[in-house]
Amino acid sequence: MHYSLMAGGKRLRPILCVASADAVGGSRSLAMPAACAIELIHTYSLIHDDLPAMDNDTMRRGRPTLHVVAGEGMAILAGDGLLTEAFHLLAREPRTNDPDLVARKLRVIETIASAAGAVGMVGGQAIDLASVTPDRSGQMPAPLDASALKTMHGKKTGALIRGSAKAGAIMGGGNEQQVEAIDRAAAEFGLAFQIVDDILDVEGASADLGKTAGKDAAAGKPTYPQLYGLDASRRMARECLSRAESVLSAGNLADAHLLGIGRWIVERSK
Amino acid sequence: MHYSLMAGGKRLRPILCVASADAVGGSRSLAMPAACAIELIHTYSLIHDDLPAMDNDTMRRGRPTLHVVAGEGMAILAGDGLLTEAFHLLAREPRTNDPDLVARKLRVIETIASAAGAVGMVGGQAIDLASVTPDRSGQMPAPLDASALKTMHGKKTGALIRGSAKAGAIMGGGNEQQVEAIDRAAAEFGLAFQIVDDILDVEGASADLGKTAGKDAAAGKPTYPQLYGLDASRRMARECLSRAESVLSAGNLADAHLLGIGRWIVERSK
Repeated sequence: MHYSLMAGGKRLRPILCVASADAVGGSRSLAMPAACAIELIHTYSLIHDDLPAMDNDTMRRGRPTLHVVAGEGMAILAGDGLLTEAFHLLAREPRTNDPDLVARKLRVIETIASAAGAVGMVGGQAIDLASVTPDRSGQMPAPLDASALKTMHGKKTGALIRGSAKAGAIMGGGNEQQVEAIDRAAAEFGLAFQIVDDILDVEGASADLGKTAGKDAAAGKPTYPQLYGLDASRRMARECLSRAESVLSAGNLADAHLLGIGRWIVERSK
Repeated sequence: MHYSLMAGGKRLRPILCVASADAVGGSRSLAMPAACAIELIHTYSLIHDDLPAMDNDTMRRGRPTLHVVAGEGMAILAGDGLLTEAFHLLAREPRTNDPDLVARKLRVIETIASAAGAVGMVGGQAIDLASVTPDRSGQMPAPLDASALKTMHGKKTGALIRGSAKAGAIMGGGNEQQVEAIDRAAAEFGLAFQIVDDILDVEGASADLGKTAGKDAAAGKPTYPQLYGLDASRRMARECLSRAESVLSAGNLADAHLLGIGRWIVERSK
């Protein structure tokens, strides 16, 4: 659990969670347990996705993947332990008897469990896995089309990014309109993140990414550059950012940190 | 998720959860979401434990195991989805704005996450796995001794059984003394359950058990009958039951259902 959690990584989700609490005028420290819990969940998902039975990746965050180091069984258990500890942390922290905060904590648990589960991240990974798994006769399924690709990414990557922002806005005490606006902006961030991920998978070198480049194309998975070309993909990512900025501005939520995260997502090189 | 959850099984943990709410004079329906969530967690743990990278079992609850039917990747994801849905359910149900019930729900999430996680069930499975995994030079570790075996089972099986009873007592509105007494009795139930499991693994036929008999001995795992003999093992299980009955009687919690569960654990033939 420690090996994978402490391997570094961008920490995008916890940063987004804390910035969202900020943006609604709430306390960062109230959002910190949710931020940490979400990083535990993200890390577990990477461990399980990297397993030979799924993406079969051997490098992650610049290190050998956990199953390479500790064996597949222990890697599965480390993932299970991280996922469970996330909810343990969410139930425990922040320690409070304030009925309003207790209610927020429970809502955050519901939000994160929904984002991470079968209707969210796990469901997206299942769609992804099914799309590259031959049937019993050895026949490969048809590749995902543009609409199915967007649905898959919306669940696999987008749901937890949205959940991160929403959890931060809830813990920060945002009202319904604020939580809704942050959630919509984060959906745009999530889509932009995935488009840029696909661009970097085409353009990037493995050393910069900390994981194996060119994997998706090699696995026959459709990518945004493949479907739309590199230039149109870059433009789509910028359009996501601009829609997110409009939503945030309209809600008086155009916090410098939140906007900065959006720009980083689109401009990053790894 | 549905295939494994609906394969049947004894439903010991949810029954114990609901009976514990009963025993403290609480409402069964308040404990029902926790009872269901715990069965989701138990089912996920069976799916992951049965994987080739762990116990490599092909039969469970009288059916082929999930990875045999759906592939390893999908089995891992189904387990992840069940575990996550358990917390989604615990956060959602029972729907209430009553501050006392909201606080109970949060405490139950903490209790169950602790029981199921790295200090509980997942930790026990990790000890179990490490005890049968050769090191890099191919050398097998020494078998667990009696004390390490008890620790391993206390985490792997006992923790979630205790968590089930405790969650029921909390949702039922039990006071601290009642919750503590139910927890102590359930610890005895859990140990008795494991001892009887070991006895049945020696004596039973695979068809009755719904899983492969004689697996533990074949895998070189120590069992209670192996360490103490069959007669002493049976006596130890009865002694657990009798200690549980004393604790429950002393706390005026000797509810007929709870005591019946204890007797069933010791007398069951599958």
